[in-house]
Amino acid sequence: MTTFDSSAPRVVCLAGGVGGAKLADGLARVLPPSNLTVIVNTGDDFRHLGLTICPDLDTVLYTLAGVANDETGWGRAGESWRAMSEVGRLKGPDWFSLGDLDLATHLTRAHWLDAGETLTAVTSRLCEGFGIAPAVLPMSDQPAPTLIETDTGDILPFQVWFVRERWQPPVRRVILPEDVRASAAAVRALETADVVIIAPSNPFVSIDPILNVYPIRAMIEDVPRAVVAVSPIVAGRAIKGPAAKMMAEMGLEPSAAAVARTYGHLIDGFIYDCRDEGMAAEDGLALLCADTMMTGAAERERLAREVIAFAQELLA
Amino acid sequence: MTTFDSSAPRVVCLAGGVGGAKLADGLARVLPPSNLTVIVNTGDDFRHLGLTICPDLDTVLYTLAGVANDETGWGRAGESWRAMSEVGRLKGPDWFSLGDLDLATHLTRAHWLDAGETLTAVTSRLCEGFGIAPAVLPMSDQPAPTLIETDTGDILPFQVWFVRERWQPPVRRVILPEDVRASAAAVRALETADVVIIAPSNPFVSIDPILNVYPIRAMIEDVPRAVVAVSPIVAGRAIKGPAAKMMAEMGLEPSAAAVARTYGHLIDGFIYDCRDEGMAAEDGLALLCADTMMTGAAERERLAREVIAFAQELLA
Repeated sequence: MTTFDSSAPRVVCLAGGVGGAKLADGLARVLPPSNLTVIVNTGDDFRHLGLTICPDLDTVLYTLAGVANDETGWGRAGESWRAMSEVGRLKGPDWFSLGDLDLATHLTRAHWLDAGETLTAVTSRLCEGFGIAPAVLPMSDQPAPTLIETDTGDILPFQVWFVRERWQPPVRRVILPEDVRASAAAVRALETADVVIIAPSNPFVSIDPILNVYPIRAMIEDVPRAVVAVSPIVAGRAIKGPAAKMMAEMGLEPSAAAVARTYGHLIDGFIYDCRDEGMAAEDGLALLCADTMMTGAAERERLAREVIAFAQELLA
Repeated sequence: MTTFDSSAPRVVCLAGGVGGAKLADGLARVLPPSNLTVIVNTGDDFRHLGLTICPDLDTVLYTLAGVANDETGWGRAGESWRAMSEVGRLKGPDWFSLGDLDLATHLTRAHWLDAGETLTAVTSRLCEGFGIAPAVLPMSDQPAPTLIETDTGDILPFQVWFVRERWQPPVRRVILPEDVRASAAAVRALETADVVIIAPSNPFVSIDPILNVYPIRAMIEDVPRAVVAVSPIVAGRAIKGPAAKMMAEMGLEPSAAAVARTYGHLIDGFIYDCRDEGMAAEDGLALLCADTMMTGAAERERLAREVIAFAQELLA
């Protein structure tokens, strides 16, 4: 295993949940901590049982801390469910599962938010509590709820569609809020980044919400640097979650090529899975095929190294 | 065991934590459910870890539901502490212990409060969840925080003094909020009550906060009915908690007689423990000595029957 040294590029990784968390973990394993900032989607945050729940942030935190439940893709390993079972018995809403260990994160976050701290500051405290060295930043300190308009015209909060309705209602469009601003910390990280990596997360409900936060898209477009994206679609299917299903419903071919076209001129390089043989370069987009599945820690590290090396070539 | 029948008096019991919960449980065992309303102190409610915690309400609920931890006097039997240990590891505040089962109550309450329901409505839902038949009402739907001014002039929220500081800082005075109003349900219960029972709870931090809620004191004073109090002081000591210590610090002799004088003309009858031989009637106050310790369910029932029978004599 090689780790990039002090001449390593300064990397900002835009991440959603599982895929983003795994690549972020790979990057954390090969980069000096001060060279990595993970900016995480908070569009699927919601208020539940009186608490602010940040599913993508928590998946990234748990993965970087080595306490994630890799089988479910959410929540913590070794979890127990005493509080949640009792909520069910008391006829409280139990459609969103919060384990006893997971609850500690939400309770601690609620304490500091109640004390007036920003979500950025609270996330930094949680990183410290979990022993996470790289910076993990919410995309914004403002609420920025993603809404899903279904084919029947219903408009659902993201988690209601994603978890309660098990992402089954077909999606007509994703509605993102206007006038959300990035935190100062996120802007600072982007200002000094050599490389921006768009993780293999859902382009529409994980990455677009981040790009939609002012001025993140403009900063990525305008500043000269290498911007690379990793495809979340492998062989026409999402590794996990609704990305492929959503693309089909929104009139897009569910393919790595369609993901690359979605990002368009925003990206300089695109990493697709070697299983997707049909990828062809267009418009001068640099391409790299890799094994993107990240089934274990070694695969995360390897992919992270390949992504960084690919981006460094684009910088040169 | 005899249970009062449909000609039983309509009883309102004013209750704080442990002692109040035990007497309420005794009353619930001998009265038809529709004849009992327990109005509970919410002066020690506070916001913690983002949640609204109602310690006295919960002690009453858990005791009536048969799930209370009788050894500690707070929280639930068979409790576990996974969430709380993890909050400590994340450097969140862990001075107030919330067990995993207990958390379910606070989370469910938070959900319904967030949905805009009153604390009265939420408490009714929790009663249903726990299978509790008598009405349990918070003294008010408004926040009514009790503050403790210590001998150094510090003014502490009640739970900070009581739990975090282990009720050690000497008390100069108890500060109760102004302009707090009773819920409609509490007023209705008092309007139709034949008997008001003041439970063996701390007069200053459990009962006074209830009496301070408009128009509870006036309703108890004005309407003809039997009002009886049970002494929380036995042989010069509080059975549990800071009542005796507070009385000494506030210049009162810690005795059953002093508790009776504190309630003054508000009460028609006073039940003291038979260990307190020095009690003497004054000002036409009716007296009854009883074993007030309520060590088990049988003792709670027996004391409840004695208290009701005593009050009925005063009604006649």
